[in-house]
Amino acid sequence: MNPVLVEAWRGPAVESFHRGALVVVDAGGQAVWSLGDVQRPVFPRSAIKVLQALPLVASGAAQALGLTDAELALACASHNGEPGHADTAAGVLHRLGLDASALECGAHWPGLDTAGRALAAAGREPTALHNNCSGKHAGFLCLACAMQGGAKGPDLQRFVRGYVQPDHPVMREVGAALEAATGERLAHAPMGIDGCSIPTYALPLKAWALAFARVATGQGLSADHARAAQRLRQAVARSPFHVAGTGRFDTRVMERLGERVFCKVGAEGVYCAALPEQGLGVALKMDDGNTARAAEVVMAAVIEALLPLSDDERQVMRSLSDVTLRNWRGTEVGALRAAQALRALSSA
Amino acid sequence: MNPVLVEAWRGPAVESFHRGALVVVDAGGQAVWSLGDVQRPVFPRSAIKVLQALPLVASGAAQALGLTDAELALACASHNGEPGHADTAAGVLHRLGLDASALECGAHWPGLDTAGRALAAAGREPTALHNNCSGKHAGFLCLACAMQGGAKGPDLQRFVRGYVQPDHPVMREVGAALEAATGERLAHAPMGIDGCSIPTYALPLKAWALAFARVATGQGLSADHARAAQRLRQAVARSPFHVAGTGRFDTRVMERLGERVFCKVGAEGVYCAALPEQGLGVALKMDDGNTARAAEVVMAAVIEALLPLSDDERQVMRSLSDVTLRNWRGTEVGALRAAQALRALSSA
Repeated sequence: MNPVLVEAWRGPAVESFHRGALVVVDAGGQAVWSLGDVQRPVFPRSAIKVLQALPLVASGAAQALGLTDAELALACASHNGEPGHADTAAGVLHRLGLDASALECGAHWPGLDTAGRALAAAGREPTALHNNCSGKHAGFLCLACAMQGGAKGPDLQRFVRGYVQPDHPVMREVGAALEAATGERLAHAPMGIDGCSIPTYALPLKAWALAFARVATGQGLSADHARAAQRLRQAVARSPFHVAGTGRFDTRVMERLGERVFCKVGAEGVYCAALPEQGLGVALKMDDGNTARAAEVVMAAVIEALLPLSDDERQVMRSLSDVTLRNWRGTEVGALRAAQALRALSSA
Repeated sequence: MNPVLVEAWRGPAVESFHRGALVVVDAGGQAVWSLGDVQRPVFPRSAIKVLQALPLVASGAAQALGLTDAELALACASHNGEPGHADTAAGVLHRLGLDASALECGAHWPGLDTAGRALAAAGREPTALHNNCSGKHAGFLCLACAMQGGAKGPDLQRFVRGYVQPDHPVMREVGAALEAATGERLAHAPMGIDGCSIPTYALPLKAWALAFARVATGQGLSADHARAAQRLRQAVARSPFHVAGTGRFDTRVMERLGERVFCKVGAEGVYCAALPEQGLGVALKMDDGNTARAAEVVMAAVIEALLPLSDDERQVMRSLSDVTLRNWRGTEVGALRAAQALRALSSA
């Protein structure tokens, strides 16, 4: 039974609460903090896009194609589908002689409601470019370009057809990066299909945390992967808008803390983070799959507990781990609060 | 510790799960089925709008103003903010000589995304009429009209200012109906402020279930309240679009089953239902507050278990209690499933 990590208060009472598991490990795989069952296999969903982007950089594709910070950040992103996101993805595809039709992630309305309504007001429909995973998929196509000796246009198009299938060479390359980063074998891991149609593999939370400790430090990674991890962390720190977007947790945190934190949300209440200065990796999963109001609050409390912060920075993080809830008229009605089990770490 | 009531599967594994409590009682207050802690006080949120609408009918206001089935259903609704909902609320206000400015529920974009985008495409902004509670609030203003001897326009406007406050005469009348229906006193119940600014009181789940058994049967209610309950159930059965809207669970279920079920969703994973033919009331609350994918699945399984259904009806309910999940490309990726603890009832 996992502990309560977040409480949702209304007036004087806890109205709802969220259980979950959390583990923080060093690059040697030693758990420095652990709550709940961290051995249960967890589908990491979008929280590990940075791992899936390692081959994009390590293969030389990113350099050969001259990918910018924004484009690399977008490769690690679950973005809002704002114009700045969709346009950046389109730019990457253009360089490959491809267009949105090459993406196999599917289309959905922008995650940011105002972006969706603006699109509708302009009489437009969303395309695969607005899919929150479009940057990751564009990154896969860049990797494919490198794997095919720089092929572009129709030649590349032929090679990448079906690239989301587990046995496609591109997806095998991505899977190999996951195995290298976690030290686990995927062959026997439960496999599901992600929202964007690529495979997702369930591994123990601790394995994902270890991969992020390696991303934080480079330890345990090949030299190419270590350099790739550093480059990707740097790109996101320089262009945090592109990893999420307006108002989003990851964007707000990395705008504020820069390269001191790399954090990334995943669907179903998953969060991972790399803390380079501490040499630590973090992975957490809420039992109920609640991301927006549960996993984020936990991640904020973890960052608050593990990083030395200025008063200003602490205030920002506290506003994300102890969130005032207001109703439609702006009246304060309650709060989301990191539970005592999490606050205990600060004093540990 | 409440049991797992819903599992979210991805491929071969349970990815997330939802715990909660559930109780089914008869009009004598006897629990015929109970799972988890049903004594814990629960804010019922919007699940009890039918109770809050009892004075609207019992006072004679509904009849005096000639409220239609659609308007009464809207008084019990958490609606999508579709044109058919907003226009119906506006019609009620018009009859009172009031407009949307009299509503104190606040404005928000329609709950149905397509309705929000259509509004945006027309260059419009949402008003309080689009608030999912606008019908309930319009109903409060009708009650106020009756309480003031039929006052309308500026006279009524003066009386209703601040009507959402717990000590306003309108809200005291509504609170009295809650006390009558549950048999509980609100004075010592934890009080919170709801999304639409009116007070919400936490009472044991069992008390809410009893109130719905009374709504189902009329037993234990005053004659006026019993008639009001019957009229409201009938109105919703005749106009199920107005209690929720396009694609919504309550609308789909009551379109199909008519007066055999009155069910109503609330925020934070609450659901209540009245089953007139069985003489039963149902109340449930998910620990994590998940309504859309957890509380609905539980309610579907409860209806499936308690009602004699035709094969067609059973298939519809099963599609709501065992839900296939598809990703953006339409690929089947998993399922939401009522847990064994719930399925056990059918065979009990």
